[in-house]
Amino acid sequence: MKLLILNGPNLNLVGTRNPKVYGNTSLDQYLENLKKSYDFEKYQSNTEGEIINKLQDSEKENFGGIILNAGGYTHTSVAIADAIEAIAVPVLEVHISNIFSREEFRNKSLIAPHCIGHISGFGLLSYELAIKAFLSISQQV
Amino acid sequence: MKLLILNGPNLNLVGTRNPKVYGNTSLDQYLENLKKSYDFEKYQSNTEGEIINKLQDSEKENFGGIILNAGGYTHTSVAIADAIEAIAVPVLEVHISNIFSREEFRNKSLIAPHCIGHISGFGLLSYELAIKAFLSISQQV
Amino acid sequence: MKLLILNGPNLNLVGTRNPKVYGNTSLDQYLENLKKSYDFEKYQSNTEGEIINKLQDSEKENFGGIILNAGGYTHTSVAIADAIEAIAVPVLEVHISNIFSREEFRNKSLIAPHCIGHISGFGLLSYELAIKAFLSISQQV
Amino acid sequence: MKLLILNGPNLNLVGTRNPKVYGNTSLDQYLENLKKSYDFEKYQSNTEGEIINKLQDSEKENFGGIILNAGGYTHTSVAIADAIEAIAVPVLEVHISNIFSREEFRNKSLIAPHCIGHISGFGLLSYELAIKAFLSISQQV
Amino acid sequence: MKLLILNGPNLNLVGTRNPKVYGNTSLDQYLENLKKSYDFEKYQSNTEGEIINKLQDSEKENFGGIILNAGGYTHTSVAIADAIEAIAVPVLEVHISNIFSREEFRNKSLIAPHCIGHISGFGLLSYELAIKAFLSISQQV
Amino acid sequence: MKLLILNGPNLNLVGTRNPKVYGNTSLDQYLENLKKSYDFEKYQSNTEGEIINKLQDSEKENFGGIILNAGGYTHTSVAIADAIEAIAVPVLEVHISNIFSREEFRNKSLIAPHCIGHISGFGLLSYELAIKAFLSISQQV
Amino acid sequence: MKLLILNGPNLNLVGTRNPKVYGNTSLDQYLENLKKSYDFEKYQSNTEGEIINKLQDSEKENFGGIILNAGGYTHTSVAIADAIEAIAVPVLEVHISNIFSREEFRNKSLIAPHCIGHISGFGLLSYELAIKAFLSISQQV
Amino acid sequence: MKLLILNGPNLNLVGTRNPKVYGNTSLDQYLENLKKSYDFEKYQSNTEGEIINKLQDSEKENFGGIILNAGGYTHTSVAIADAIEAIAVPVLEVHISNIFSREEFRNKSLIAPHCIGHISGFGLLSYELAIKAFLSISQQV
Amino acid sequence: MKLLILNGPNLNLVGTRNPKVYGNTSLDQYLENLKKSYDFEKYQSNTEGEIINKLQDSEKENFGGIILNAGGYTHTSVAIADAIEAIAVPVLEVHISNIFSREEFRNKSLIAPHCIGHISGFGLLSYELAIKAFLSISQQV
Amino acid sequence: MKLLILNGPNLNLVGTRNPKVYGNTSLDQYLENLKKSYDFEKYQSNTEGEIINKLQDSEKENFGGIILNAGGYTHTSVAIADAIEAIAVPVLEVHISNIFSREEFRNKSLIAPHCIGHISGFGLLSYELAIKAFLSISQQV
Amino acid sequence: MKLLILNGPNLNLVGTRNPKVYGNTSLDQYLENLKKSYDFEKYQSNTEGEIINKLQDSEKENFGGIILNAGGYTHTSVAIADAIEAIAVPVLEVHISNIFSREEFRNKSLIAPHCIGHISGFGLLSYELAIKAFLSISQQV
Amino acid sequence: MKLLILNGPNLNLVGTRNPKVYGNTSLDQYLENLKKSYDFEKYQSNTEGEIINKLQDSEKENFGGIILNAGGYTHTSVAIADAIEAIAVPVLEVHISNIFSREEFRNKSLIAPHCIGHISGFGLLSYELAIKAFLSISQQV
Repeated sequence: MKLLILNGPNLNLVGTRNPKVYGNTSLDQYLENLKKSYDFEKYQSNTEGEIINKLQDSEKENFGGIILNAGGYTHTSVAIADAIEAIAVPVLEVHISNIFSREEFRNKSLIAPHCIGHISGFGLLSYELAIKAFLSISQQV
Repeated sequence: MKLLILNGPNLNLVGTRNPKVYGNTSLDQYLENLKKSYDFEKYQSNTEGEIINKLQDSEKENFGGIILNAGGYTHTSVAIADAIEAIAVPVLEVHISNIFSREEFRNKSLIAPHCIGHISGFGLLSYELAIKAFLSISQQV
Repeated sequence: MKLLILNGPNLNLVGTRNPKVYGNTSLDQYLENLKKSYDFEKYQSNTEGEIINKLQDSEKENFGGIILNAGGYTHTSVAIADAIEAIAVPVLEVHISNIFSREEFRNKSLIAPHCIGHISGFGLLSYELAIKAFLSISQQV
Repeated sequence: MKLLILNGPNLNLVGTRNPKVYGNTSLDQYLENLKKSYDFEKYQSNTEGEIINKLQDSEKENFGGIILNAGGYTHTSVAIADAIEAIAVPVLEVHISNIFSREEFRNKSLIAPHCIGHISGFGLLSYELAIKAFLSISQQV
Repeated sequence: MKLLILNGPNLNLVGTRNPKVYGNTSLDQYLENLKKSYDFEKYQSNTEGEIINKLQDSEKENFGGIILNAGGYTHTSVAIADAIEAIAVPVLEVHISNIFSREEFRNKSLIAPHCIGHISGFGLLSYELAIKAFLSISQQV
Repeated sequence: MKLLILNGPNLNLVGTRNPKVYGNTSLDQYLENLKKSYDFEKYQSNTEGEIINKLQDSEKENFGGIILNAGGYTHTSVAIADAIEAIAVPVLEVHISNIFSREEFRNKSLIAPHCIGHISGFGLLSYELAIKAFLSISQQV
Repeated sequence: MKLLILNGPNLNLVGTRNPKVYGNTSLDQYLENLKKSYDFEKYQSNTEGEIINKLQDSEKENFGGIILNAGGYTHTSVAIADAIEAIAVPVLEVHISNIFSREEFRNKSLIAPHCIGHISGFGLLSYELAIKAFLSISQQV
Repeated sequence: MKLLILNGPNLNLVGTRNPKVYGNTSLDQYLENLKKSYDFEKYQSNTEGEIINKLQDSEKENFGGIILNAGGYTHTSVAIADAIEAIAVPVLEVHISNIFSREEFRNKSLIAPHCIGHISGFGLLSYELAIKAFLSISQQV
Repeated sequence: MKLLILNGPNLNLVGTRNPKVYGNTSLDQYLENLKKSYDFEKYQSNTEGEIINKLQDSEKENFGGIILNAGGYTHTSVAIADAIEAIAVPVLEVHISNIFSREEFRNKSLIAPHCIGHISGFGLLSYELAIKAFLSISQQV
Repeated sequence: MKLLILNGPNLNLVGTRNPKVYGNTSLDQYLENLKKSYDFEKYQSNTEGEIINKLQDSEKENFGGIILNAGGYTHTSVAIADAIEAIAVPVLEVHISNIFSREEFRNKSLIAPHCIGHISGFGLLSYELAIKAFLSISQQV
Repeated sequence: MKLLILNGPNLNLVGTRNPKVYGNTSLDQYLENLKKSYDFEKYQSNTEGEIINKLQDSEKENFGGIILNAGGYTHTSVAIADAIEAIAVPVLEVHISNIFSREEFRNKSLIAPHCIGHISGFGLLSYELAIKAFLSISQQV
Repeated sequence: MKLLILNGPNLNLVGTRNPKVYGNTSLDQYLENLKKSYDFEKYQSNTEGEIINKLQDSEKENFGGIILNAGGYTHTSVAIADAIEAIAVPVLEVHISNIFSREEFRNKSLIAPHCIGHISGFGLLSYELAIKAFLSISQQV
């Protein structure tokens, strides 16, 4: 199963920004390192429409699952939520920080209702847990 | 009068997505077929900024009217609403489904106050009714 | 297909009231004129219960569709909404003005979720567009 | 100047209902007595549509002013508010009790924004004060 | 004790409308059948004002109790609530369906605070239980 | 059909507490007296979890129906609502007082959507009416 | 009966400020003129505490009634409302403009529940109507 | 690292209740099976206070981590949230279903802000992913 | 006068938990020490129902007053509030921390309206002040 | 330790106003009497700004603590709250009545988050308890 | 152009209060120093009414512009907002701190809609920027 | 210090759009003219993601400060707010119009809490004031 790790706005800055919340390792280094153990592609964009484009293309690019951290768009984008609902590839919502213990507007995820599952709060480890989740699901079937 | 049919995020998927809500015909096929009877251009984008760009360019591209289905941006985009208010070309709001009978956040259209009219709920037929509305308005003047 | 144009409270005053919002032509003159081109009956009442009675009677009066402008009851009447839901004849919601650009309490239509479509903001022309919509739907089937 | 005193639902019961709030004299006796000193007609109905009909007819019945106690419809009727806004005859809002010191839903008057003035809380005397207000206004002009 | 069963808007359609919610038997047949076992009169109207008139007349028509299903007016009518509060005859609120498991706006009953009791959710059987409640109360006194 | 009357917090105090609201007879005496006419078991607990335990055990204890007055937990317990939804035994919601005419937080019942019916406001008589309701339902089937 | 006309913040500017809302005559000139026909004292202050002081002193200054236009404090001052409730002298609330047709925060009067009556919207005439109201009340007793 | 899997109200019914939401396998069977691969204890209670007791005892029982599915108490229990905050043992929040796609009151988790992470929506597999998360965390340190 | 100090969930942890908010001394040590100067019994439970049981038993256990710190149940328990209202023994609400300067959901106390007084924010000293309050009240009578 | 008892608007009327809520003794008499047992100064003003002035002067007047009953300003004054936060002298919030069992707008204290503690509901005794609290705190240090 | 720098409650304490938010320099020293470079008068009061008096007097004192930091009254005073609207002298709103990054009730400025501009968050420098703004505006004209 | 003036959606239309609100000069002409006096770069985009990209690139492009007018994204973009928070370059929020006197949804700025200051309402002059603010800050350090 080919997986896509799809990151939204500002996640390219992780490791520089807000170390108390996100830690010091850059997300990019972490994912490169993770590639040694697991097979996946990664894509990051700051633009809402490009994230939607990537979600829409996932089927013809033969992805079996998508791990999505939509960053700030998690709380504002009806359009990304609609895209997740529209495509057949299952999407798993991931967050580095515990979105429930930050500002109130981060408590509400517009995309959550259309995702197959939600993993958050484990720092960068959240991504590895998400990969393991997809592997467990595929073994289960 | 040259018309522009401007479609927002995920409307390129209509015909595959949510057949219960949007039906089985692809929007693109439908519009191609409609071109046999009426004269218009069409444009679709998943990116909020590109929709704004297209709205802003409408005047110098000599469009006499715009039929806009802003998709998920209907409910979240102050910037598209500002663009509609800023340009001189009249904009008509269209929706395939009845946005009032779906999730509550779809009840509120940010762009509606700046549009000359609103047609929704007739399936793909909504587009043809919108063209007829523009023709009736231009005959009336 | 016999159509019923059903108008609610104060629509008998259109043409006298609020010319900035509704224009100068009386709705009655407009509809009489429209009868030259299309076949329909019209009924107006200021009383919520009489509008419900008329909706309930529509089936045995053999109407194929109802074009309803419920006026001020649009925003307050659960009972009219229940009647629309209860009957088999399809109802199409029409408004002369753009209800989305007026007072906030006019943004919410209680009847919209039970109607087959919604046309608003085109002035009196909204009624003719509604007739065309019914004709298009019947041709389509 | 011919005045109309227009009373809404349940005001025919005043004198029997809630003596703590409305007192013991029947509104009808009070108004009959008031007719000895002032010239006005009176009309009462429990039906929202009939109150709208009466408001709409006021112009051709040559009323110079309307004193309206809309009872429970004060807080729920967009349609009566629309009628007041639509007609040329000035309407003065009257309430027997202090609507601000009762249940919270009685704090909001939908008709108030369209009335020339508001008198409430003086018991049945509110009606006489309203007549005096109309007389003062006409003397002023 | 003479009872009045007073039904509001659209309850004349029960048996045709929404069979999943209200069942297939018409309310009228059911009540006719119930008359074989119990003594009561019945009245139905789609008009808010006529329901208020009937409530106001109940005393001089010598009713000992009223079983009221106000339909859609349950959630919007301050005027009916005021009428119930104003009259001496006790009113018992009845609903066929479980109003708490439907749309949120049906959760709130404006008339409930002024009724002696509330029975809902038992289908048409709710009416018979309401009659039994009145009989039990009168035996108790 | 064996019935269970299940009472929640503070209902063991009825007869001592708030006589204006609940009357002077103790609920326990009332139910003991009622046992002369009907066949049922009764259980009272002040602990949310014990009420859930009892609901869960109802099936293997062969109850055919449960009459539940959840007291203060009516308005706060998602867990009891979940238990009612989870079990096969039908639950009927009962209240001694009219919960709609008391504090606003008592207007909302979390358990109502999962109950087969709702009887409230008849004082202790509410319990007998609930038993009669179960008997009527079982005769009907 | 000695009356006090008590005006709050910015009412000393009436006649200069917002002519569309308040007219061109200064309130002071108007009241001086009114003194030719009626007997009253007047007091104006921009300070919340001084208005409270004046209300508290009204009893020992032998005022029989107070006509209060609390200006902007109408919508924000719990302390003035408490003062009105605390004193024995009756207070009548007056406003020059129709507070219901302006900004939403002006719809709510904190002092209204403690006043014997409310007169608003008649321009400066509101003050004379308030004096007439006090005279009518005293005649009535 | 000894783990505790702590389940709240009604989770003992999983496998019987709402198969569409929770599936057909009983949670107990699933966990028993999981014990073959991982080392943990399990505890279930329907009582809020007993869950708090267990959380408080976790330190002296030498648990290195707690996997908590608080069921319906997730959305209502400030007291359980306080307990999680008070103890030193890390707590991981788990849900079988996607709480974001069910009733709105299930969108809000009171305990989430005090948990180290959140895993939901994977069915019973959520528990195994939670164990893996704890193992990954302990390896990381 | 025999007093009961009744503590709710997690108060057995005070001294270990959140030293910034609650300080370092354990509540139990503090109360044991306080017993040298004052006469009272103490009881702590994490279970809502057991707190209600204890409140209900207070009368037959001859307590003259109850000092209640309901912990997290302060903000969620209608049932404890009902119990306080139902019993004759006066209850005094106590909190260690200033509940008004913490999370917003801690601003609202459901039990406060039924208590004779409220003391909060003085750390453990709040308990001694509460005892002194009861002594002052009893001396006063 | 020199204490200041600082009273806000209308507290000079206590003993005359609302005897059901505040009792019959005047606050001034009570405090004069209390001076026989304790050492403090007192100050009352109806003006928000004068209360702020007094709070700001407290440091150079060498007060060791302030007992503040801000009356109606408790619920509306951000400026008094800011003053309390700005000064070094500790402030203790006091209320005569139980502010939680009165109108809802009295439930929220803007000043509470900046006070060292809160005592309310004990009638005039609240002041003596507040003095005792300050004495206990100073002994403790 | 003569300018007035008008400061509201507690701004006389700046430099002592909350150094993290407002810095260590006293506002008074800062303004005295600023007088070396610019020509303006300054006035500070803790009393809402005195601020209104000063605003009203600004015209006859020949001020060409007012720089207003209304402190805590920014968020609560309709009366100051009315005064700004009523006078002809332009008012510029200034804040030392970023009011948008503090408590939520500080996000809303009642006076902002009536000011010609808003400068906030630059510390004491905000005042100098406001003077420069007035100079730029006057040069522009 | 090199400054970046970063403009969001529709600001390229200023001078054509809404002259009452934004004036007649085009923003581009104004900024070109301003370049004669000050040193800065300018960038405008209608796309949320491109604004984020530009913000993220500001550090490596050696900007010392950013003047941001985010247009309609001011009120909807969590992602832009996150970007501002993430970068080290200080951002100053600017608006041409007074956002507080327009539609309510424009009252709330999501980006304000992360900016060093806020200047709005001075028309195009707001940009020059922002430049002056940066110069003053850099001189101050």
